[in-house]
Amino acid sequence: MCSYASVWRAKPCDPKNQTGQCSFSPGQKKTGRLAIIGLGPGRREHFTLRALQVLEESEVIVGYERYLALIKDFWPGRKVLASGMRKELDRCWQAIALARQGMRVALVCGGDCGIYGLAGPALELLLSQPKGPDEDDEIEVEIVPGLSAISAAASVLGAPLMNDLAIISLSDLLIPWPVIKKRLEAAAYADFVTALYNPKSKHRTEQILEAQAIFLQFQPPKTPVGIVHNALRDEERKIITTLDEFTQHEISMLSLIIIGNSKTRIIGGNMITPRGYEIKDTELKDTKC
Amino acid sequence: MCSYASVWRAKPCDPKNQTGQCSFSPGQKKTGRLAIIGLGPGRREHFTLRALQVLEESEVIVGYERYLALIKDFWPGRKVLASGMRKELDRCWQAIALARQGMRVALVCGGDCGIYGLAGPALELLLSQPKGPDEDDEIEVEIVPGLSAISAAASVLGAPLMNDLAIISLSDLLIPWPVIKKRLEAAAYADFVTALYNPKSKHRTEQILEAQAIFLQFQPPKTPVGIVHNALRDEERKIITTLDEFTQHEISMLSLIIIGNSKTRIIGGNMITPRGYEIKDTELKDTKC
Repeated sequence: MCSYASVWRAKPCDPKNQTGQCSFSPGQKKTGRLAIIGLGPGRREHFTLRALQVLEESEVIVGYERYLALIKDFWPGRKVLASGMRKELDRCWQAIALARQGMRVALVCGGDCGIYGLAGPALELLLSQPKGPDEDDEIEVEIVPGLSAISAAASVLGAPLMNDLAIISLSDLLIPWPVIKKRLEAAAYADFVTALYNPKSKHRTEQILEAQAIFLQFQPPKTPVGIVHNALRDEERKIITTLDEFTQHEISMLSLIIIGNSKTRIIGGNMITPRGYEIKDTELKDTKC
Repeated sequence: MCSYASVWRAKPCDPKNQTGQCSFSPGQKKTGRLAIIGLGPGRREHFTLRALQVLEESEVIVGYERYLALIKDFWPGRKVLASGMRKELDRCWQAIALARQGMRVALVCGGDCGIYGLAGPALELLLSQPKGPDEDDEIEVEIVPGLSAISAAASVLGAPLMNDLAIISLSDLLIPWPVIKKRLEAAAYADFVTALYNPKSKHRTEQILEAQAIFLQFQPPKTPVGIVHNALRDEERKIITTLDEFTQHEISMLSLIIIGNSKTRIIGGNMITPRGYEIKDTELKDTKC
């Protein structure tokens, strides 16, 4: 419906060029640019070089106020548009409108913008919604992936993700609970290592108990479970516990939970899911690394 | 069994300090250090700043020859120990032994070292295997997560991962095929977006057809499927196709496949799994960004 916005991935700049020389030639019609950027856990040291470069090239940064607070010291003087929780679509709209006016815009979000992040709603809105009378159809779009919350949490716990993985958000605001429940059952049944995003909020406290009950139908009570708060950020804390006890610990929207599979072990304080190398050492091939 | 190696995460250096000043004070007993680093897709622009910093601090870099080839220009003169495919455990051993001799060692791997990567076998070996007569028990260990292959591939395709996700490796060298098959069935049944790692090799060609047949039992033939070769690397190519046709395209060990769920759509050449914002816009809360 409505007008169609051309979208393509911006040609990456020279990877060895750290000075941010991707700007447009003078005299050329200024094409707006929308970069949707995952900033990872929040500390600058976990940004990718590409994220840093694109932020430096941007004229305006749009994001959730909490994440912007993490980066405000890095770019003093740059125009920043912050908004609060629940304003995801407003942020996407704002970023798209500015890019259509010819600005270079960075729409930032925590973790990987491509995993439950803003890449989806921003692309959907860009591709399906009308532009304003002074806005341009053609803008450059780049999705800049960032370090995901699951990668961050795993690195804190040890090596829990050496085997097949399910990632499930327990927030039932956008997805009906029966759908989520079916996924929890499937993950537990098929012995996935399972990461739970958005496990519990102030007003949503029952889902985590239901998830625990589902896993206990399929996995032993002593299955290792890791809880990480603020992974790779200030105030990081980790707890390594078990399936039958983990809900007794503090869990919030800042927690990510990893439930081990039948192979997961606690070794020297680390949560490790063996991949099976010991057993079949001589047969190794086809593996990723 | 055997001796026990103390392991702790190294205290992160000052995130704003880009000069790599994490070295040890003169006169102090030199403690070895093992950093297990995920380098992401391979281009320097997708390294995290932390990965870059730790590589710069390292005296020796151990890794798979193909990945080391990608980074050799960045650190000329640094000692590099390269080995071929199927030598995962050799690399881990080598890196551990050098760290126990007091060296600062970077054990590098592609993608995120914590997702099917070297973090698992390296920690397992470190914690369970004996040290040599001249080796020290105490070394600093840090796991430095990197941009995962799934994050890289998703960013190339659009925004396919806005909904619950299953990641399954089709390599049955370390995991029995019936276990993998059960996971494929569970993922298809529960309407996960599903990423397939190691989909096909020269000698292993049937699993991808079995996976396709399983998904066709649960999902419509026109379900979107994305194939990305060399995501965010040179020679990147993407194909957006459908569940009933995707196995007719070229698939190799350099491909990552993302099978959409029942909500996934192709919009303007992008593969997008809506998260449901449109429907329940006014109710948004508890979401990640």
